[in-house]
Amino acid sequence: MQLSPRPTEKAELEEGALFQPKFDGDGLIPCICQDADSGMILMFAFMNEESLKESIRTKTAVYFSRSRQKLWKKGESSGNVQHIVDIRTDCDQDVVLIRVRADGAACHMGYPSCFYREVSLPAVEDAPVALRAVGLEKEFDPKEVYKS
Amino acid sequence: MQLSPRPTEKAELEEGALFQPKFDGDGLIPCICQDADSGMILMFAFMNEESLKESIRTKTAVYFSRSRQKLWKKGESSGNVQHIVDIRTDCDQDVVLIRVRADGAACHMGYPSCFYREVSLPAVEDAPVALRAVGLEKEFDPKEVYKS
Repeated sequence: MQLSPRPTEKAELEEGALFQPKFDGDGLIPCICQDADSGMILMFAFMNEESLKESIRTKTAVYFSRSRQKLWKKGESSGNVQHIVDIRTDCDQDVVLIRVRADGAACHMGYPSCFYREVSLPAVEDAPVALRAVGLEKEFDPKEVYKS
Repeated sequence: MQLSPRPTEKAELEEGALFQPKFDGDGLIPCICQDADSGMILMFAFMNEESLKESIRTKTAVYFSRSRQKLWKKGESSGNVQHIVDIRTDCDQDVVLIRVRADGAACHMGYPSCFYREVSLPAVEDAPVALRAVGLEKEFDPKEVYKS
């Protein structure tokens, strides 16, 4: 498969029928991962061209780990593979949204979603901003799953 | 309000009760915007420290426009203000998720969401990857809304 080069015309990006994703200076594109059934945002990560192509080809989520600087097949350690239902992109094609059905929790902390805390509002003037749990429950114990 | 500096301990970031967001080398943090009721992903943009504080303070979405290099109060041209229901962050606090109720469509193209196209799967070997509409309808005519 070929990912097409970026067009010079903005209208082509916005209204065209070719996938012409924009990778940033580091060769990465942001990727939002959403549960296809519940709509819950599961996680956010980056893809490079190779991982995006692998995600399209295998219909399972393959990211690029910035910390380890290598392809990151979601679930290769935890078994929590994310099966892709569809892949969307935004108006200017510089973000990817994958909607998935996952074999298990998305977050390495054991929660179904990485977004397990919210900002306490209203924030108090001249004070640090606090976080609080949104009420998600851990589905696994990270110590058990990531033994290495 | 104060956004706390990043801790040296990973456990504090992941399990602590302080909002300690990570801004990248350009001073930006990715922000996912989701409809609080339908769960639809409306858009993706970036915030800098000032716009994040403004979003927390005003409970309306304020982004940072990378192309214009200035604060971007969502709705200032279109009237389509996004009212924030809650603000979440992920395990390592380098992404923000805002859940909103919006006065109108999120996308400058007139669609309720910027993610109005999906990748046609399966992709054909050795051919460009195609996009197709997911079936969203335009809620406004961009030519009418963004005159000037």
